[in-house]
Amino acid sequence: MKRSFIREILDVITKESISFAGGLPDAALFPLEAFRRAADTALQEASALQYSASQGYGPLREKIARRYSDAGFATHAEEILITTGSQQAINLIAMSVLHKGVTVELPAYLGALSAFRLAGVTTDGVALEADGVDMDAFRKSIAVTRAAYLIPDFQNPTGVSYSIEKRNAVAQAMQETGALLIEDAAYSELYFGRSMPAISAAMPQESFHLGSFSKILVPGLRVGWVRASEANIRRILPIKEALDLHTSSLDQRIIDAYWDANGVDAHIAEIRRSYEAKKNVMAETLLALLPEFEFNMPRGGMFIYGRIPGVDTKALVRRCLERDVVFVPGAEFYPEEGGSDEIRFNFSHATPEQMQKGIQIIAECLRETL
Amino acid sequence: MKRSFIREILDVITKESISFAGGLPDAALFPLEAFRRAADTALQEASALQYSASQGYGPLREKIARRYSDAGFATHAEEILITTGSQQAINLIAMSVLHKGVTVELPAYLGALSAFRLAGVTTDGVALEADGVDMDAFRKSIAVTRAAYLIPDFQNPTGVSYSIEKRNAVAQAMQETGALLIEDAAYSELYFGRSMPAISAAMPQESFHLGSFSKILVPGLRVGWVRASEANIRRILPIKEALDLHTSSLDQRIIDAYWDANGVDAHIAEIRRSYEAKKNVMAETLLALLPEFEFNMPRGGMFIYGRIPGVDTKALVRRCLERDVVFVPGAEFYPEEGGSDEIRFNFSHATPEQMQKGIQIIAECLRETL
Repeated sequence: MKRSFIREILDVITKESISFAGGLPDAALFPLEAFRRAADTALQEASALQYSASQGYGPLREKIARRYSDAGFATHAEEILITTGSQQAINLIAMSVLHKGVTVELPAYLGALSAFRLAGVTTDGVALEADGVDMDAFRKSIAVTRAAYLIPDFQNPTGVSYSIEKRNAVAQAMQETGALLIEDAAYSELYFGRSMPAISAAMPQESFHLGSFSKILVPGLRVGWVRASEANIRRILPIKEALDLHTSSLDQRIIDAYWDANGVDAHIAEIRRSYEAKKNVMAETLLALLPEFEFNMPRGGMFIYGRIPGVDTKALVRRCLERDVVFVPGAEFYPEEGGSDEIRFNFSHATPEQMQKGIQIIAECLRETL
Repeated sequence: MKRSFIREILDVITKESISFAGGLPDAALFPLEAFRRAADTALQEASALQYSASQGYGPLREKIARRYSDAGFATHAEEILITTGSQQAINLIAMSVLHKGVTVELPAYLGALSAFRLAGVTTDGVALEADGVDMDAFRKSIAVTRAAYLIPDFQNPTGVSYSIEKRNAVAQAMQETGALLIEDAAYSELYFGRSMPAISAAMPQESFHLGSFSKILVPGLRVGWVRASEANIRRILPIKEALDLHTSSLDQRIIDAYWDANGVDAHIAEIRRSYEAKKNVMAETLLALLPEFEFNMPRGGMFIYGRIPGVDTKALVRRCLERDVVFVPGAEFYPEEGGSDEIRFNFSHATPEQMQKGIQIIAECLRETL
């Protein structure tokens, strides 16, 4: 198995590197002091350090379920399974319920492709348009695979957000086919305009809705969750147990204590405001310094995706790496051919000064070779 | 996939239950206050909450490597990969390097059997004798499987400790065959007498040595490690990345900060003393109240294993469960037939009073049906 470019980069970049790679949240937004208090609260009880139930910490599952219900997607705690990050959730599903392959977006989230490959699940790619998957191709694909993995909100890598029409069309097509939806909602809360309904809410029995604290709170604790019917939770629970017994008891308790003390809404609102401002700076910097780069403005999430027509962006990033600047070339997001002149820029991690300096360096590297 | 009896039990037992099931460490020994201080130290830096390298936190890998080297098993930090508990380590290896099956002890560790099943790796069981595996059967088995998963110290479930002669014989047989050793050392530090050398030390290039903080510190953080050659670490690292990106940054930093402030030796020595005393109480209680139970005295670890000749211990545990007492019937530890009159008792978790009361109840349940 090949290592992902992104993870290799994370291993080699230094504090001096300017990184537009990865999906690194802005560490300046981490509520460090609130976490210290939450850790202190969680560590009042020795049970925070003991083995715990495979499905996850009850009070945390209840909070997550209530938040779904409050948003209009009726859910109870037995329909939540806590996972070691959202990445593990994809593995659990790939290993237990996918047998005939899975339909994915093109370009696709790398971590999902790795999980499907590891489980021996073949992927069938369907092109993403500006408002979601190409519906004709999607219908044909799920007729064979009977399952789809989608990121309808601010997709990784493209930043595409599905329109209401496409959401409805996807739910209808899947229900007509009797196909299973895996909806990765890692970025769903990071909207700059308005929140969009989960596709899973229209098909709560035949879907897995994947959430994570990585983008709305902190990623380092590796705590995510799956929302599914009780029957589907029971299908993946033995795999969860076989993979790592349970997610860190302490990490779950710390997040629960943090939530008790602070709620989560105010912090998420702060992240939205900050990321929208960063997106604006990044977009303006790109337009000013790298006008060769063509892109659509994202309405949420952490990425600006686009292309420099005709330019081999893999060769470009190697030159940029020598000057300690890095982004992810689009070809990485295609399981086979494609995307050779595309680029994904993360805008949540770098400072405005780093954006200015980093994009300038990329522009210089580009022009050296044109 | 079937859920394990032990994990199902962990989900249903209450605070009032008397449990000799599971491998629950004694929570009274958890260094709760030292962990609060360690968490506070770790949470001085926002990087403790950020994504981090898949191989694990450098300073923690260095400490682990140094501890191996100090014990005479030369190791450097690049030969350590941090895992989400030892359970994940078994999965990583099963998914990447085992192709022709794996030789396991009979009875075997349940979690390993689950991991092998999940990866589609067939297991071949070899009987455990009082001093280690039956060597004739072992040689025949590894000639086919080319790999073995062993717990040479205070094996789970039997508590068996391999003699020096068997350790040498295993290493020699494996090297002659060119087979790969997976040595699970989860209990190795919990010796009541003396420490025994790792079999892996005799074959450092062709072995994976699995360690864990679960039994020597706390289990709830899910932090373990693999010690292997750099080439073998590179084989499993992409799987680690695909499964959960990396182990909790915060949990790794907390353990590292705890180690910086306290070392680990004094605490492990305390656990040894406490568990040996508990083993003595448990053994005396069993001899006094349940003389039908035949067992060998373990020289370390967390379990007393034995049998009540001719008694169906699965039926027995169901009756005991009605009176809120639980242990693991031996049949659970055999992938196919076997062990129907065997029992594994954990002695690290219950108090002396619970041992007295629990064994008395088991004796009553047994006699009701004789």
